[in-house]
Amino acid sequence: MAQNSRSKHHKLVLLPSGHQGVVQAGVTVLDAARSLGVEIESICGGRQTCGKCIVEAEMGTFDKHGITSSPDNLSLPDQNELDYAAEHELDLGTRRLACAACIQGDIVFHVPPESQARKQVIRKAASELTLEVNPAVRLYYVEVDDASLGGLSDWDRVQKAMVEQWNLNDLTIDPLVLQDLHPSLKVGKNTVTLTLWSGSEVIRIEPGYEEGLFGCAIDIGSTTVACYLCDLRSGEILATTAAMNPQIRYGEDLMSRVSYAMSEPQGVARLHRAIISTLNDLIQEAAGEAEIQSGEICEMVVVGNTVMHHLFLGIDPTPLGGAPFTLSVQGAIDIPARDLKLKAVHPAAKVHVLPCIAGHVGADNVGVLLAERPMLDDQISLIVDIGTNAEILLGNQDQVFSASSPTGPAFEGAQITHGQRAAPGAIERVRIDRETGVVRYRVIGDDRWNDELADDESLRPTGICGSGIIEVVGELFSAGWIDSGGLFVQNAPERSQAIRYNDRTAEITIASGETTESGQDIIVNQNDIRAIQLAKAALYAGVRLLMDHMGVERVARVKLAGAFGSYIDPTYAMLIGMIPDCDLDDVRSIGNAAGDGARIALLNLEQRELAGREAAKVHYVETAVESSFQEHFVSAMDFPHATDAFPHLKDLLPDVAIKSERPSQRRKLRNNT
Amino acid sequence: MAQNSRSKHHKLVLLPSGHQGVVQAGVTVLDAARSLGVEIESICGGRQTCGKCIVEAEMGTFDKHGITSSPDNLSLPDQNELDYAAEHELDLGTRRLACAACIQGDIVFHVPPESQARKQVIRKAASELTLEVNPAVRLYYVEVDDASLGGLSDWDRVQKAMVEQWNLNDLTIDPLVLQDLHPSLKVGKNTVTLTLWSGSEVIRIEPGYEEGLFGCAIDIGSTTVACYLCDLRSGEILATTAAMNPQIRYGEDLMSRVSYAMSEPQGVARLHRAIISTLNDLIQEAAGEAEIQSGEICEMVVVGNTVMHHLFLGIDPTPLGGAPFTLSVQGAIDIPARDLKLKAVHPAAKVHVLPCIAGHVGADNVGVLLAERPMLDDQISLIVDIGTNAEILLGNQDQVFSASSPTGPAFEGAQITHGQRAAPGAIERVRIDRETGVVRYRVIGDDRWNDELADDESLRPTGICGSGIIEVVGELFSAGWIDSGGLFVQNAPERSQAIRYNDRTAEITIASGETTESGQDIIVNQNDIRAIQLAKAALYAGVRLLMDHMGVERVARVKLAGAFGSYIDPTYAMLIGMIPDCDLDDVRSIGNAAGDGARIALLNLEQRELAGREAAKVHYVETAVESSFQEHFVSAMDFPHATDAFPHLKDLLPDVAIKSERPSQRRKLRNNT
Repeated sequence: MAQNSRSKHHKLVLLPSGHQGVVQAGVTVLDAARSLGVEIESICGGRQTCGKCIVEAEMGTFDKHGITSSPDNLSLPDQNELDYAAEHELDLGTRRLACAACIQGDIVFHVPPESQARKQVIRKAASELTLEVNPAVRLYYVEVDDASLGGLSDWDRVQKAMVEQWNLNDLTIDPLVLQDLHPSLKVGKNTVTLTLWSGSEVIRIEPGYEEGLFGCAIDIGSTTVACYLCDLRSGEILATTAAMNPQIRYGEDLMSRVSYAMSEPQGVARLHRAIISTLNDLIQEAAGEAEIQSGEICEMVVVGNTVMHHLFLGIDPTPLGGAPFTLSVQGAIDIPARDLKLKAVHPAAKVHVLPCIAGHVGADNVGVLLAERPMLDDQISLIVDIGTNAEILLGNQDQVFSASSPTGPAFEGAQITHGQRAAPGAIERVRIDRETGVVRYRVIGDDRWNDELADDESLRPTGICGSGIIEVVGELFSAGWIDSGGLFVQNAPERSQAIRYNDRTAEITIASGETTESGQDIIVNQNDIRAIQLAKAALYAGVRLLMDHMGVERVARVKLAGAFGSYIDPTYAMLIGMIPDCDLDDVRSIGNAAGDGARIALLNLEQRELAGREAAKVHYVETAVESSFQEHFVSAMDFPHATDAFPHLKDLLPDVAIKSERPSQRRKLRNNT
Repeated sequence: MAQNSRSKHHKLVLLPSGHQGVVQAGVTVLDAARSLGVEIESICGGRQTCGKCIVEAEMGTFDKHGITSSPDNLSLPDQNELDYAAEHELDLGTRRLACAACIQGDIVFHVPPESQARKQVIRKAASELTLEVNPAVRLYYVEVDDASLGGLSDWDRVQKAMVEQWNLNDLTIDPLVLQDLHPSLKVGKNTVTLTLWSGSEVIRIEPGYEEGLFGCAIDIGSTTVACYLCDLRSGEILATTAAMNPQIRYGEDLMSRVSYAMSEPQGVARLHRAIISTLNDLIQEAAGEAEIQSGEICEMVVVGNTVMHHLFLGIDPTPLGGAPFTLSVQGAIDIPARDLKLKAVHPAAKVHVLPCIAGHVGADNVGVLLAERPMLDDQISLIVDIGTNAEILLGNQDQVFSASSPTGPAFEGAQITHGQRAAPGAIERVRIDRETGVVRYRVIGDDRWNDELADDESLRPTGICGSGIIEVVGELFSAGWIDSGGLFVQNAPERSQAIRYNDRTAEITIASGETTESGQDIIVNQNDIRAIQLAKAALYAGVRLLMDHMGVERVARVKLAGAFGSYIDPTYAMLIGMIPDCDLDDVRSIGNAAGDGARIALLNLEQRELAGREAAKVHYVETAVESSFQEHFVSAMDFPHATDAFPHLKDLLPDVAIKSERPSQRRKLRNNT
């Protein structure tokens, strides 16, 4: 026997990966592939029942590999395989169960995507990413010995089966899952499917053979909470649900929530319970859409900014509200879902919370890091995620810097006369005709401009959101009706009827009272422009500060993340000097990159570990202590002209733009943090 | 410096342990002692604040050790030590803080018990046991760096402090304890006391310096639940509380509870919740007695028979009710208290559940094993714990056997005409005058015999408990009024007015209706005697079976565990043949040995590990499949006479005892399991 097995070897080629090698005669294709480093899916453990390991024999001569492949070079199907084929209409001529077919000669196989253990998913976003599906949880089907008098306990017999059938030793079990052991063995007639977390801990036990394995990626934004329900075997998104963050009722922006947490005795607990309750709802809704039981969800990954991160974990975020902005915990956390009262998912499901970077740079940014991977790029990327603070990542394969700039809530429409959150009814686009002075606008929820409507129609705007205000400012500046210092020019009212001086300040009417929801004019005044200047100066100063730290004068790409980043028109962002100069083609919105990052960490354990490593390597720059930040901030108050620093403005900015002749009003940066 | 420290060494002797050795000049006594393997208590980590490490310098010449010890051979107290001494009235002439005093010459120290890190506790029970206090949880005081801009998170700074100040690396933290980090650092002004479980996981964080460390040992009996609240630093029992097992309302004995669990859809959950709720009450009551907050309790150890063990963990015990009597889990379990809704203790407290041995031999028996340690004895011990099943341990240092005999509930007073549980009012002692035939008795709760009372007094018995019935049977047999087959002899009524034939069966009145609580006679009849015979035969047969397995004919000691074992008079136990022959002086009651074992496992981690190892080594013998068990059972139905097997009965049994002339009524053993 030993001599025989030494003498008989055959060549095996696996497509599409191209892995090839010499394998021993008589072994199954499943084992042979594994020996060549190709993992073929198998849940039943080679019992010819699950059909996950179907492979396709390729016939013919493969010159490249120097072999002639023939289905004859495989063992004949045994009764189990024949039964499976009959039941599932499998043509055994070319398609075989890898766990059944044994190699008896040179052969080439195609491993179809659905049979690859580590399936590939492609992230269909701005930065395309191909990802192996390799989650923290995996399924194992085992056949367990019958119980016997004086014999082993249920758990000991299950462990024995896992050693014998899967070569997995030293397993532990969630003590509460012990409650499911006996019932599962009974119903499954001593066959069960185990769900293993991290290759070591049994967190679920189901009777018989099961193949459902689901997980959720959660992005907790200050405004919106999103839930992506994924099939953890295929990597597919089965459902996406989203809801307003219910904490809004305790505080519109982050800092008011921190104040609430600080001042109310039950504040932290209320904010914590509110988000948990919404997550339970979102998960259940997603499960309903995907037609699964939410209790089948065994793994979660959560991202959020630092305040959301702390509140999700029930930690008081108060220290994040003032210097030195200290996190309670920075590293990644695994916590059983039940400890957070996340009742929608399986009670032993684990929640993985991505690490934070610093007091103002949270797990959401680590998600962005995973999704956008500036650390793998030889070019310099700038990634900004704009909220009450703008979180900034700048870097390339050599190093990555991060900072948080206190932009304040102006971009979110707060502290603006008629500002509002980006929501249906908000004015998001504005154009001003330089000849006639007429103002046109579009509101969220309708893709027509207001002058495209029939006479009896109206958009009834409710206010103006961040992107709308930015366009008003950009239009006014590029028309030459405000100067680079942000002040309305003296003769502006002569240029447009919409503009008028009112006491000692000027304002422009975007929508007149007859057309608005409230019946009041929606205007943008001098103070509003000033607020936008402060915000964009803070953002730009943060970016410049990181560029200084990195020692660069230009960035190759600009990526705008988050909801605001989706609404904003890059032209106007550059026009008012929010972002550094860059080819407009290289400025793009990347959508919810934080959520994408959460999903990546959910699907792939190596990526999750990468997140931990890379988060720890990011150089955090604290804007509050860098004196040059204040200098950059003051210089950035003005709107930029086409200079060496902004060569691309040459194409954007008509020469009518007016340079301020007065010294900039040097205001100190408000401490928005 | 280096040369100097190489050249200067002094002798150090530590009493009472007698550890001695040469240590480097200039090191603290704390460090020097550690280098000799003597752990001196220290919570503050050598900051001269906790005063736990006080040691006493012994002056004079110690010929045995060849040194002259003088307090001059120690460094002078520094300001910290002087401050401590002033505040706590410490005479620094001889008593020093080991963390402050440095060795500058040969010296002898006495380490008083309260300063020993591993304190000694002595178990004041039948088997005396000296135990080092070395629990799974320990306290560590640390001073944490201030938070700084761009600096480490709270948890990272705490970890850094633990590495620097205690040399403890790779710590983890219960994610929910993160909620306490910032508040504790704030209140403690960046000093905190951590509670570490198993040397690796932070399960509690308290502001500043704290020294309270408490744990509970719990014994869940079918009838009684006991809670021992211990100080985990001194090993002392601070409070003991006990209550009826609330599951009794769902079933008097174990098997009726198993039936309830099996037949009621919510049965398991109800039985589980009932015991948890009682434990919460018991723990709170104990904490109240000890004047601590129950939330300060950080560790629990639980024992119980297999059904109690499963129900405590919320596991369906149904499989334990029928062959093959399979446990869901056999090994020890650590589970967070909160997962079991044990809300009385600290939420991150861990519960250690001792392992079981087999389907009928539970964690309570592992507790007995730890408390009585037959596996360390060169003599053969027999340990029986009698309930609905009698759990039997037999062995010595070579091997230990265990079995469970289906005695049925007769010893607990069930299925006996006027039987009742051992409780105040139950007749527990009975004597019958052979001359006059007068029956005397004593009830639980009064230490007088009924004929010692004044005329206007009465004991008002409510029934008769197991030990009382055994004494009735023993008295009747040794008087010769029942024969060794258990039947009343023909002329018994002539010997005592208390005995009468009633139809075709006989009975004896123990207390007449005028004196009892109910007004009815309390009697023991032929059927009751038969029930006791069945029970004692089952017990004896189990013991004999193990003796066969071990190949021995005699045991050196008999230990009777549990409540019943405390009430029973060994003389009568031997007289009716419940236990094998043994010198009466070597038969003793060991009280709640299971509870003692739980306490041992609570106080000492090595003992806990020993329990796991020894439980796995015990040879379990399944009585249900051993044909010789049935044979032993049948032979044991008769009461024994002084024969080779029972030499000690010669002294106990008068020659009036009557040997049955009829063949024993060969009944099959009822299946009580």
